Amino acid sequence: MGTKGKVIKCKAAVLWKPGTPMQMEEIEVAPPKATEVRVKIVAAGICGTDIGSLDNKELAQYCPIIMGHEGTGIVESVGEGVNTVKTGDKVIILGMPQCGKCNTCLNPKNNICEEIRLSPTHLVSEGNNRITCKGKMVCQYIARGTLSEYMVIKEISVAKVDEGVPLEKACIISCGFATGFGAAINSAKVTPGSSCAVFGLGGVGLSVIIGCKAAGAARIIAVDVNKDKFKKAKELGATECINPLDYSKPIQDVLFDMMNGGVDFCFEVTGLPETVATALASCHRDHGVCVIVGAIASWVQLNISSELFFSGRTLKSSVLGGWKTKDDIPKLVSDYMAKKFNLDPLITHTLTLDKVNEAVQLMKTGQCIRCVLLP
Amino acid sequence: MGTKGKVIKCKAAVLWKPGTPMQMEEIEVAPPKATEVRVKIVAAGICGTDIGSLDNKELAQYCPIIMGHEGTGIVESVGEGVNTVKTGDKVIILGMPQCGKCNTCLNPKNNICEEIRLSPTHLVSEGNNRITCKGKMVCQYIARGTLSEYMVIKEISVAKVDEGVPLEKACIISCGFATGFGAAINSAKVTPGSSCAVFGLGGVGLSVIIGCKAAGAARIIAVDVNKDKFKKAKELGATECINPLDYSKPIQDVLFDMMNGGVDFCFEVTGLPETVATALASCHRDHGVCVIVGAIASWVQLNISSELFFSGRTLKSSVLGGWKTKDDIPKLVSDYMAKKFNLDPLITHTLTLDKVNEAVQLMKTGQCIRCVLLP
Repeated sequence: MGTKGKVIKCKAAVLWKPGTPMQMEEIEVAPPKATEVRVKIVAAGICGTDIGSLDNKELAQYCPIIMGHEGTGIVESVGEGVNTVKTGDKVIILGMPQCGKCNTCLNPKNNICEEIRLSPTHLVSEGNNRITCKGKMVCQYIARGTLSEYMVIKEISVAKVDEGVPLEKACIISCGFATGFGAAINSAKVTPGSSCAVFGLGGVGLSVIIGCKAAGAARIIAVDVNKDKFKKAKELGATECINPLDYSKPIQDVLFDMMNGGVDFCFEVTGLPETVATALASCHRDHGVCVIVGAIASWVQLNISSELFFSGRTLKSSVLGGWKTKDDIPKLVSDYMAKKFNLDPLITHTLTLDKVNEAVQLMKTGQCIRCVLLP
Repeated sequence: MGTKGKVIKCKAAVLWKPGTPMQMEEIEVAPPKATEVRVKIVAAGICGTDIGSLDNKELAQYCPIIMGHEGTGIVESVGEGVNTVKTGDKVIILGMPQCGKCNTCLNPKNNICEEIRLSPTHLVSEGNNRITCKGKMVCQYIARGTLSEYMVIKEISVAKVDEGVPLEKACIISCGFATGFGAAINSAKVTPGSSCAVFGLGGVGLSVIIGCKAAGAARIIAVDVNKDKFKKAKELGATECINPLDYSKPIQDVLFDMMNGGVDFCFEVTGLPETVATALASCHRDHGVCVIVGAIASWVQLNISSELFFSGRTLKSSVLGGWKTKDDIPKLVSDYMAKKFNLDPLITHTLTLDKVNEAVQLMKTGQCIRCVLLP
C-alpha cells in the first residue's frame, strides 16, 4: 500500500475536554512501531464505558483523546515482529489484550492479561503515542480509540477474523456483546433448562439474554424500570419481562415467589451498587449464582446482608465475559457468521462518524441499544 | 432386642437453661414412630454450632433440650416404613437430612433438603417429641441431640456405615469434618497445584486443610491469631502458617505480595463477618474463589468494597460441605476407612458423656480441636 511507513492524515472524533462534545478533527497517525499494527477502522461501536467516561473529569489529564474501544477494520500495515496479522487482513479490535505469555494468559481460569495493568493509561505505549492533532499528542481510550479513520494498536489487542465477516455488524462483538454473552456462557455457566434473570436491558444486558438463550435456559426474565426495553428483550430471547415499579414489594420477593425459592442465575447489568444485593437476593437461596456484569464504581461499599450467604448463594464478577480475547473473540465472530446467535437486533442505529455526538445522545436517552459509527 | 417397642430409660446431658451447665439426667425415650429410627449412641462430637447455641438466650423456649448433632451409633429399632437401616446396623447421624424427594434433593446443584425448612425447630416431629425428662417433653437440638445414650431420629437423617468403622472416630464426620472437607472439595473445587488459605484453625478449618491437601493443592496457608494452632495445621497439611498479629500491614496485603496477586482459594472459617472481606480480598483478584464456611450471624451486614469485584473474584457460601448427606456421608466414612485422608489428629480428647461440661470448656478455651464424648 502507498501509505506504508508514512504518516497518514485522516479524520477522528477528538474529545478535548470531558463534558464537551467531541470534535471532528484532522489527525496524523504515525506508522506502527515494533509489535504494533495500524488499522483502517471500518466500523466502531460505542459502549457504556465510553459514555460514562465522556463526562468524567478525571479524563481531562488524558485530553485530547480519541474515544471508543469497539471496532473492526482492515490492517493497513504492521510493525516489526508482528506475525498474527498482516496488511489487508480483516480484524476485530479486542476489548482487552491477550499477550499469551503472562501468568494470567497461561492460567486457564483467568482472562485479565497482565499487560492491562502494566500498560500506561490511554496510551498505546509509554509516553509516546502514534497520533497527533494540531501539534499535540492524542491519547487513545484504553489504548484503543476506534472513533477514528485510522489507529495504531498493539498486536496483542487485535485479532484476524474471517474474510466474509460484515465488519459493520461484528464491531460490537469487541466488548459489549462479548461481555454480556460470555457472562452467561463462561462466568455463570448457565445450564440447559435453568432459570435466569437479567437486571438492566442495555446492550450488555440484552447480550446476556442472547447468552442465556444460547445456553438453553428455559426461563429468561428480563428486568428493567424502562418498559420500552421489553420488546427488544423478548425479540432476543426473554421469556417474560418485569418492571419492578409495577410491584409494591421488592423485586427479589416477587422473583422468590415466582420461581419457588429464587432464580438459578441472576445478572447485575445496571452498574448500580444497590442492584448487586437485589440480584443476589433474587438468586435461589441454596444454589443461585449472581454475576456482576455492570461496572460498579470501585469506591462504593456493597452492603450485603450476611443472611444472603447463609445457605448456598454465589456472587461473582465477570470481565469481558471471561473470554481469552485473542483466542476466543474471533471464534465468537465465526459463531455469529454460522448463525449460532443473532446480534443484529442489538444494532438499532448506524451513523457516519461525524454524527458521533448524536450517537452519544441516542445512547444516553435510552433511544438506542447500540449505534455503529462508520468513519 | 428386648427393648423394641418399649420406652427406654437412660442417661442424657440435658440443658435446662442457656448459659448454665448441662445436667446428666435420666430420660425416657419412646419407641420410634413411622419413618423414625431409635439409635443407641456410641459416640458424639461437639461442634462449634453447639457451643455457640449453649449460651444463646433464644434457645430458652426449647429447653429442656439435648444438645449435639454429631454422632454415630447402632440402630436399636425402627418405625414403620423404614427400609434403609435396620436393627443392629452401625449408623452415622447426618448433620442435615436428605429426603431424596424434594426439589432440592432432586437438584444436583443443591444439598439443603427442604425438610430442614419444613420441620419444626429442635423437634423430630411437630409438637410431639419422643423424649421426656421429669415429666417434661425434651427437645433435640436441630432434631438430633446426640449427647444422650439413646435418641430417636428421622430415617432421612441417619445413614448406614460399614460394619468395620470405628464409631468413636467417625462421629466427627457427621458435620464438622464433612463441612470443612467438602468446602474445599465441592464448594471451592480446589484444583491440583493451586494455592489455598484457610482463615481460622478450629476443627472445621483444619478439615478444610485436609480437603485442600486431598485435592492436591500445592500451597496451603493456615491463618490464625492463635499460634498454638499451627502445629496441628502443619500435621494435617498446611505448608505454611501465618499469624496476622505478626504483621504491621493487613493480612490481605501480606498474602497479595506473598502469592503474586492473591491466593487461588480462600476459606473464611472464623465466623467473624469482618473476616469475610479479608478472605475475599486475599483471593487472587482475577480468578480467586472465597468460600464462607463459618456460620456468620444472619443479621450482620457485610461491608465489601465493590473494588473486590472489579476483576474476577467469586464469593460463595457452603453448607455442610455441599454434600448430599445420606448419599455422600457414608462414602466419606468409607474413604476414611480406606485411608484416603486422616482425621484422627482432629480428635484431641475423648471423655465420657458425664464430662460434657468439661468438654465444652476445652473447646471454648481452644485447648482442644474436637472432643468425642462416649455415653
